[in-house]
Amino acid sequence: MTRSLVGTPALFIPGPTNVPERVRSAIDIPMEDQRAPDLPEFTLPLFADLKKVFKTESGQVFLFPSSGTGGWEAAMTNTLSPGDKVLIASFGQFSHLWVDLCQRQGFDVEVVDVDWGEGVPVERFQEILAADTEHEIKAVLATHNETATGVTSDIAGVRGALDAAGHPAMLFVDGVSSIASIDFRMDEWGVDVAVSGSQKGFMLPAGLAIVCFSQKALKAAGSATSRRCYFDIADMIRTNKDGYFPYTPPMSLIRGLRASVDMLFEEGLENVFARHYRLAEAVRRAVSAWGLSLCATEPKWHSDTVSAIYLPEGVDSGAFVKYAYQQYGISYGVGLSKVAGRVFRIGHLGALNETMILSIIGATELVMRDFDVAFQTGSGVAAAVEYLHESNKNIRDIAA
Amino acid sequence: MTRSLVGTPALFIPGPTNVPERVRSAIDIPMEDQRAPDLPEFTLPLFADLKKVFKTESGQVFLFPSSGTGGWEAAMTNTLSPGDKVLIASFGQFSHLWVDLCQRQGFDVEVVDVDWGEGVPVERFQEILAADTEHEIKAVLATHNETATGVTSDIAGVRGALDAAGHPAMLFVDGVSSIASIDFRMDEWGVDVAVSGSQKGFMLPAGLAIVCFSQKALKAAGSATSRRCYFDIADMIRTNKDGYFPYTPPMSLIRGLRASVDMLFEEGLENVFARHYRLAEAVRRAVSAWGLSLCATEPKWHSDTVSAIYLPEGVDSGAFVKYAYQQYGISYGVGLSKVAGRVFRIGHLGALNETMILSIIGATELVMRDFDVAFQTGSGVAAAVEYLHESNKNIRDIAA
Amino acid sequence: MTRSLVGTPALFIPGPTNVPERVRSAIDIPMEDQRAPDLPEFTLPLFADLKKVFKTESGQVFLFPSSGTGGWEAAMTNTLSPGDKVLIASFGQFSHLWVDLCQRQGFDVEVVDVDWGEGVPVERFQEILAADTEHEIKAVLATHNETATGVTSDIAGVRGALDAAGHPAMLFVDGVSSIASIDFRMDEWGVDVAVSGSQKGFMLPAGLAIVCFSQKALKAAGSATSRRCYFDIADMIRTNKDGYFPYTPPMSLIRGLRASVDMLFEEGLENVFARHYRLAEAVRRAVSAWGLSLCATEPKWHSDTVSAIYLPEGVDSGAFVKYAYQQYGISYGVGLSKVAGRVFRIGHLGALNETMILSIIGATELVMRDFDVAFQTGSGVAAAVEYLHESNKNIRDIAA
Amino acid sequence: MTRSLVGTPALFIPGPTNVPERVRSAIDIPMEDQRAPDLPEFTLPLFADLKKVFKTESGQVFLFPSSGTGGWEAAMTNTLSPGDKVLIASFGQFSHLWVDLCQRQGFDVEVVDVDWGEGVPVERFQEILAADTEHEIKAVLATHNETATGVTSDIAGVRGALDAAGHPAMLFVDGVSSIASIDFRMDEWGVDVAVSGSQKGFMLPAGLAIVCFSQKALKAAGSATSRRCYFDIADMIRTNKDGYFPYTPPMSLIRGLRASVDMLFEEGLENVFARHYRLAEAVRRAVSAWGLSLCATEPKWHSDTVSAIYLPEGVDSGAFVKYAYQQYGISYGVGLSKVAGRVFRIGHLGALNETMILSIIGATELVMRDFDVAFQTGSGVAAAVEYLHESNKNIRDIAA
Repeated sequence: MTRSLVGTPALFIPGPTNVPERVRSAIDIPMEDQRAPDLPEFTLPLFADLKKVFKTESGQVFLFPSSGTGGWEAAMTNTLSPGDKVLIASFGQFSHLWVDLCQRQGFDVEVVDVDWGEGVPVERFQEILAADTEHEIKAVLATHNETATGVTSDIAGVRGALDAAGHPAMLFVDGVSSIASIDFRMDEWGVDVAVSGSQKGFMLPAGLAIVCFSQKALKAAGSATSRRCYFDIADMIRTNKDGYFPYTPPMSLIRGLRASVDMLFEEGLENVFARHYRLAEAVRRAVSAWGLSLCATEPKWHSDTVSAIYLPEGVDSGAFVKYAYQQYGISYGVGLSKVAGRVFRIGHLGALNETMILSIIGATELVMRDFDVAFQTGSGVAAAVEYLHESNKNIRDIAA
Repeated sequence: MTRSLVGTPALFIPGPTNVPERVRSAIDIPMEDQRAPDLPEFTLPLFADLKKVFKTESGQVFLFPSSGTGGWEAAMTNTLSPGDKVLIASFGQFSHLWVDLCQRQGFDVEVVDVDWGEGVPVERFQEILAADTEHEIKAVLATHNETATGVTSDIAGVRGALDAAGHPAMLFVDGVSSIASIDFRMDEWGVDVAVSGSQKGFMLPAGLAIVCFSQKALKAAGSATSRRCYFDIADMIRTNKDGYFPYTPPMSLIRGLRASVDMLFEEGLENVFARHYRLAEAVRRAVSAWGLSLCATEPKWHSDTVSAIYLPEGVDSGAFVKYAYQQYGISYGVGLSKVAGRVFRIGHLGALNETMILSIIGATELVMRDFDVAFQTGSGVAAAVEYLHESNKNIRDIAA
Repeated sequence: MTRSLVGTPALFIPGPTNVPERVRSAIDIPMEDQRAPDLPEFTLPLFADLKKVFKTESGQVFLFPSSGTGGWEAAMTNTLSPGDKVLIASFGQFSHLWVDLCQRQGFDVEVVDVDWGEGVPVERFQEILAADTEHEIKAVLATHNETATGVTSDIAGVRGALDAAGHPAMLFVDGVSSIASIDFRMDEWGVDVAVSGSQKGFMLPAGLAIVCFSQKALKAAGSATSRRCYFDIADMIRTNKDGYFPYTPPMSLIRGLRASVDMLFEEGLENVFARHYRLAEAVRRAVSAWGLSLCATEPKWHSDTVSAIYLPEGVDSGAFVKYAYQQYGISYGVGLSKVAGRVFRIGHLGALNETMILSIIGATELVMRDFDVAFQTGSGVAAAVEYLHESNKNIRDIAA
Repeated sequence: MTRSLVGTPALFIPGPTNVPERVRSAIDIPMEDQRAPDLPEFTLPLFADLKKVFKTESGQVFLFPSSGTGGWEAAMTNTLSPGDKVLIASFGQFSHLWVDLCQRQGFDVEVVDVDWGEGVPVERFQEILAADTEHEIKAVLATHNETATGVTSDIAGVRGALDAAGHPAMLFVDGVSSIASIDFRMDEWGVDVAVSGSQKGFMLPAGLAIVCFSQKALKAAGSATSRRCYFDIADMIRTNKDGYFPYTPPMSLIRGLRASVDMLFEEGLENVFARHYRLAEAVRRAVSAWGLSLCATEPKWHSDTVSAIYLPEGVDSGAFVKYAYQQYGISYGVGLSKVAGRVFRIGHLGALNETMILSIIGATELVMRDFDVAFQTGSGVAAAVEYLHESNKNIRDIAA
C-alpha cells in the first residue's frame, strides 16, 4: 500500500487535528457510569468553562454526540419552523452543505451565491435585510470559516449589517473550523447559535458537536415547530442543569474535552489565536515564495486555520495529495467540488507549533519537487523561517 | 468524594460496558484522514462483517455518530412519513422513550401498555394486526431487550404475529442492549430496521449508533417524507459504497469497532451468546439464593444482558446504588421511572468472564450486608459457583 | 490456548501487581530527553518524596534500571568487600536467592536455616551477634517479606537484636514485597540499606530497583572494594544531586513512579497499610473457612501482601494454578522450590479493593469446586464479607 | 518554564528515540504473570527472531533489565577474569566510559587514544595484536557507533586485523547506537559479544540491554572468574531455554520488543539500514549547505544514526541546545566532554521518515537564525530536499 509506513504520519488536514498526548490520556480511560452521583462535579464546571470559549455569559452550551452537521441540524430545528425564511451565502463546500440541510429541513432558503475564494458578502446581506421590511427572514446564517476554500468571514460585519438594517433576525454561525482557533465573540457579535465540533480547534477526535445558544435562541425554541427529538435542546436543558444527559453521552470524549479546555485556558485564548495567526502566516509566506496563490482572493479572507493552495495549471491536485499520502504518509486536504483537482489544502489548526509547521512546508517542497512543480527549492522554508524569526519578539529577547 | 478510589472500579451498569484492552488500543490512535485513499480497504470489509453480526445477507448497516436514540431517529425518519401509524408496546423506560420519539416525530403511535416486568405482548399484537385490515399500521416496533426491567422479548414471535395476520407492516427492533450479546437474526426474523449502539455488546465507548436496514426498509426510504438530513441514509448509501462517509466519521470509534467485531468472531457469535446466558444465569441463581426477585416476572422474559433486582420493602434502591458507588466504587444501574427506588440493576453484558461475575455477586453480598438486607451471607456466591461448575462441560473435561 | 480470553484477566500474583490507570497514563508517554534542562524540576522532588515512603530523613534513595535482584547487588557491592562476613536467615525462595547472590559476590555468608513458614529468627540472630565479639559480621540481612511463603519478619526485632548485642553491623532489608504495602521505617529501625522494586507496592511494571541507603551505608561505600560499575552508587550520587542520571534512565517508569508516589500520599501511607491488612485478613478468613491452612505457621508471620495456601494432600498445586490460568484467566503465584506442588499463592498487594479481593475469593471457590477440593461452597466469601463488613467502622456510619 | 508547550515536541536526541504507536500499544498493557504456562509460546520465538537482528545463527541473545551500560558489564564479567588484558580505543564519551567500566571491573586495559572525530584505528590495532605474540590480550573492544561524535567504525576491519595478526582474542562490540539501524553482522564479522539497548534502533523506552554472545563467548563464561550474579548469563541460559527468566522480567518492554522486531522485519533490515543512510545523508547535505562541519572528520566515519555538528566559533552549543528546548520544544543531543559547548547533535535513528527529518532541518534553520548563526536561510532544506528527491528512484517512478 503506502511506502512510508515508518515514522509519524504528517496530518495536515483541516480536521480532525492532531490530538495532544494529554487529551489522548484523558480519553483513553475505562468506561464510567453516566448516572454516577459525582458526575455533576465534573460536568457542571465544564459547561461553565465552555461558555468562556464561546465568549458568552448569557448563552448555553450543548454537547451532542454527532458531527458538526448534527450541530447545524440542532441549530436549525430547535429555533425555526418549516417554511421559515433564512438568508445564507454559499461560497464553498461547507456553506453549500448548510444550504442543503436547510432545504431538506423545509426552510425557505435565500441563497446568495458568492465566488469561491470570497466570504460572506456583508454589504449584499445588508441590502437584503434592509429590503426585508416585513422581517420574513428569521435567521441569517454565516459560515465563519469556509474549510473548503480557506476563507474567513467577518461575523462582526454581519452583525453590523443586521443592526444597520434594524433587522430582528437571529444570527447563526458555523464556527466548526474557527472556534477555539480564531477569535469568536458570541455575546459581543450578538450571535444566536454558534456551532462547533470536537475535531478542530478543540483538538479531539470527531464525535461531538459543541453548540451554543443565546437566550434569544433558547426562547425561539419554545415556538419552533420543526420536528426534533435527538437534537432537541429541551431534553438537554432539563438534564444538563443537574449535570446529566438525556441519553448516553460519549463520556470519553467529554473527559477529553475537559483536558482540551484546560489546555486552551492555560495557553490563553488570545495566545491560541495569535499562535494560529503566526503559523498560518508562515504557511502563507511559503506559498508566496513558491510563486503559488491561495484560493482566498484577498488578505481579508485569509483563514488562520486552513490554506487552500492552487497548484500550477496542469498539475492535478488530487493526484498530488494522493501521492503525498502514499509516498510520504502526509495527509493534506483535497480540493472539494468546484476546486477539486486544482487546490490542495494545508490545515494549520489545533495543537501545532513551529517545528510542525516547518515540517509540512519542507515536506511540501519535497512533494512539489517530485511532482516537477516549478519553484525555488528552499524558498518556502526560508520565507517561513524569516517570518517566524522576525515575528517573535520573545525569541529575540531570549536570544539576546 | 468517594472513599474507594483505590483499585479498579466495578462497572456493572448495562452500558457502557467494559472496553477490552484490545479495543482500547484500537481506539487510542492518532487521528487520520477520513478521505485517505486507502480508507476503503478498511471500511468496506468492516461494513460487510457488521452484516454478519446482524445475521443478514441482504441488509445494509449504517454507522451514525450518535447514541442509540439517534439510531431510533434514523430508523423512523428514513422509512416513514408524518402521520404514519406505528404499533408499539411500552413496558419500561426505553420502550417508553421510543414511543415519545415517535410522537415527537409526528407519527400516529398506537401504544399497548404492558406491565413492567413483561415484554412485547405477541398475542395482543397479533390481534391488533389482524384487526388492521386496511393496513394502516406501517411499522411494528419491538424492544428486543428492555434495559430498564431486564426483559427480553420474543422477536421471532412478533414476526410470527405479523405473518399470521398477513400484515405487510415493517418490523423495527430496538436491539441496543441485545445485539452482539443475545441472539438476533435480522433475515430469519424478517426485521426491517434493527438499531444497536456501540456501548453495549460491541464493547466500545458510547458515540456510535449501528443501524441495519433491510431491502424493504431501504426501499421505503424512497417515499418517506419525514424531514431528515443528519440521519438521512441516502447520504450514507451514496458515500459508504466507496468506503467513505458523508461527514466526518468518528474514526477512532470505528477503528475500535473493527477490533470489537474481530473479537466477536474469534470467540464465535454463538459462544458469545452462550457465555452471556451462562453468566446471566449465575447472577439469577445468586438472586434467587438471596431470596430476592427479579423485575422480569417469568423465566421467558429473563434478559441475559441485564438483571433488574427488587430489594426488600423498605430498602431504597437509589440509596443502595449510591452507597455502593461511594463506598466501594461499584456502579450498578439504578431503578428508572416506575421502578425507581425499588430495583437496582446488574448489567452482565460485554467483555465479562466468570471471575468478574463472581466479583459483583460477592461485592453485592457485602453491600447488602452493610445495608442490613436480610440474606444468608455467601449463599449467592455458592449458588453461582455451583451453577458455573455444573454448567461447564469443558471444565470437567479439563479437570479430569 | 487458554479458553477464557474474554474479559479482564485476574492477576493475583505477588508482583507484578495491577498497574492503576493513572500510573499507566503516566508511563505511556512519548520519549523525552534525559538531559533536558527542566528535568531536575521533576526528579529532585521525586527523590525527596521517595524518602518519605521509606520513612527516612537522612537516607538517600537510588533508582536502578534493574529488577529487585539488582537492588540486592547494589546493596551488597557498594558497602562490602569480598570476604566480608554477613549473617542471613534462609526460609523461602527469595531469602535463599539472596544467600546465593552473596556467595557469588564473594562474601562469607553465615546462613541460619529456618523452616519455611517462619521468618527471621530474632533470638537466634541475637545469640550469634552477641557471640561475634570480634564484630566480624559486617552486615545482617533480613527479608522483610518472604514472597514464597507469605511470611513477614520483625525488622524492629532484628534491630533490637543488634542493639541488645551491641553489635555495629549494618542492617540490610529486602523490602521488595513489603515497602509501600506494609509499614517500613528506615530511620526508626536503623536500617542501612533497604531494597524495593517497582512492580509490587509501587504498582508499576517491573524494571526499576528502588534502593535506600543510610548515611552509614553511604559512608561504607567509601571503603568497600567489591568491584562495581553499573550498580555503583558513586555515579548516582554525583549525577542525582543535579537531577540527572549516570546512564540513560527508564524515564517512562520514573514518570510512572511519580504518579504512584502521588497516589500513595493521597491515600496516606498508614491508610495504604491498613487497607493491605484488611484485604489480607479477608483472604485469611476465607482460607480458614475453607478449612485450608497457610504456609505461615503463626499469625505473627502473616504477610499482608501475599498468602501461601496449602491445598489438601493429593491436590497438585501446580496443576491447580495452571488450570485456573487456562480455564479462567486467573494468575496465582505457584509454589516455589520446597513447597512446589503443595501451595498456591494469592498476592494481595498494590492497587486492590474489596471488590477485587472478593473476586479472587469467589473465583478460587469455583476453581476448587472444579478441582474437587472438599470445602463448603460460599463459605470463604461469607467469612470475607462478614469480616469486611465488621471491620469497617466507616461503612456502618455511612449506612446508618 | 518552556514557552512552546503546544504541539508535539521534536525529539532528535540519539536515544531514546521516538517510540512508534504500535510499539507504545504493545507496551501499554496490563501486567501479566511472568511464570504463565503460555509465556514460552511468546518468548521462545522472540529469542529466535532477535538472533536475526544480530545476523547470527549460532549466537544467543539475552535480555537484561538494565541500560546499555549494564550490557557492557554483562559482556565483560561473563567472559573475563580480573587482570585479563583487553584492547580498546577511546575516541568519544561512550568509548571512554567503556574503558572506565573495564578498569573498575579490574581488567588490564590497553587504551589507544584517538582524536575525537575518528573511530577505531584498525591498523594500529593490527600492529598491537601482531605484537602480542603471547596472546595476553583476551578481548578487543570496539565501539561500533560512537554516539558522542557521530562516528561509525569499521568492525569488519577490526575482525580483519585480528585475523591478519592470527590473534585469538575475542571481539566485543558496543552496538548500542548502531544495531537495528546500521548494518551489523555478528557471525560474518566474528563478533563474540555484541551489546545493544532498547532505546535506540529498537525504538523502545530505555530499560532493556539486548546482548548477544557467540559460542566462543558462551564457552569463555565457564572459566571467567569475574564475580557476577545479576548479569550472570548462566541463570539466563538455564531459564531462557524454557522461555522464562531468572528474575522478574520487564514484560511490558519485552512485549514492546516483539512489536519492534516485527516492524523491523516487515520493513526489512536492509531497507531499515538504507532508510537510515538516506535520512542521515539528508542531514549531512544540510549541514554542508549551511557551511558547518561535522565532528566526524572523514566520510568513512560518518554515522547514519547521529550527526555531531560544530557550531561556528563563538556560539555556545550548550546555550543553543537549551534555547531550542525552551523556545521550541526541540531536543538535540548536547556536546559531551571534550566537545561540550562546541557541538550539538542531531539523532537520526529509529522510527523516522522524510517529513520528520525535514522538520528538524527546517527547525534548526529557525534556531540558528534566532541565534544569529550566519548561513543562507533555506539552504539546508533545499539541499536535503534535492538529495531526497534525487536519491529515491521509486519516487520518480511513481511520479511519472
